[in-house]
Amino acid sequence: MAAIEDLASEFARLPGIGRKTALRLTYYLLKRPPDEIRRLARALDAVADRIRACSQCGNLTESDPCVYCSSPRRDPSILCVVEEASDIAAIERTGEYNGLYHVLAGRLSPLEGIGPAELNVASLMARLGNGSRVREVILATNPSVEGEATAVYLQKLIQPLGIRVTRLARGLPVGGDLEYADGVTIAQALAGRREM
Amino acid sequence: MAAIEDLASEFARLPGIGRKTALRLTYYLLKRPPDEIRRLARALDAVADRIRACSQCGNLTESDPCVYCSSPRRDPSILCVVEEASDIAAIERTGEYNGLYHVLAGRLSPLEGIGPAELNVASLMARLGNGSRVREVILATNPSVEGEATAVYLQKLIQPLGIRVTRLARGLPVGGDLEYADGVTIAQALAGRREM
Repeated sequence: MAAIEDLASEFARLPGIGRKTALRLTYYLLKRPPDEIRRLARALDAVADRIRACSQCGNLTESDPCVYCSSPRRDPSILCVVEEASDIAAIERTGEYNGLYHVLAGRLSPLEGIGPAELNVASLMARLGNGSRVREVILATNPSVEGEATAVYLQKLIQPLGIRVTRLARGLPVGGDLEYADGVTIAQALAGRREM
Repeated sequence: MAAIEDLASEFARLPGIGRKTALRLTYYLLKRPPDEIRRLARALDAVADRIRACSQCGNLTESDPCVYCSSPRRDPSILCVVEEASDIAAIERTGEYNGLYHVLAGRLSPLEGIGPAELNVASLMARLGNGSRVREVILATNPSVEGEATAVYLQKLIQPLGIRVTRLARGLPVGGDLEYADGVTIAQALAGRREM
């Protein structure tokens, strides 16, 4: 049963998958045709073999530079800075952004020993240096304590270059309910209130 | 991004894993070293290549016959009939059973078109036929409507052979709370009450 145990152990390494779920997934696959199991294995191999960080923006990609960096239809004067490559997908889903991206691959976290040197900060500053066409940097790090600290840190680096620095608006989520919103969010929504 | 999309789609096929969890797992793996991704792929391949049903009991195994059927230390006079190979692991964890197993690979379910012919019933009856050393069959199908119907069906087939047929006890789960037990379980616990 070593193969079954091995697979369950590998599944159990994944985030949010405990021992019981790992076994359930394993036994589910055992009841599927072997070719279906191999299809998942091939998809994993493809990712392991072909996905790498874009040398320009740090996005995860099969082609280098990535689709955004190599697209002639994206606006090179706006750069959106995100924590993770997965955040790009979330922004792209809105269909409202047409600039370029830069992936930090994390956030400042002194407690975890993550400083600017552990993030793609040097490559970001290189893109904003002499001859850069970037006129605005949108700091789209998460609205968390660490994301906020990262944004403030980057703002201090970027603003002296004469580039506009913006941050995603905070406030009530669309479809949310004032009654259930937390106080900090309501405070942010108040502070950021706009004329109708 | 085809490789990333493919992997997310494959994950999303697994039970209990929706689109969002599939993406989360995919992006998690993308941040791990490629060798770690390949280790999961190899574990899947090993299962696809090596795991098959035991020709005697239907258990999922790398070696045929399986560890239980081939063990000289298991008692061949008791046979425990379960719905799925994964149920064997649950019973083995108790350390209280030392007989052999038979895996039906399902349960009777007329609504899903699953009759005796779709289950490992013929092979079960063959094991109980002339010259069989089995003296007791424990019907350990699930305590559900379908598991119950399957047990009753098998009882009618097996009892005429002069073999003792038993069923796992039903009652209050250990550590459970009478207040929160459902009525059917309490009724079963009452009907099955024992002298102290």
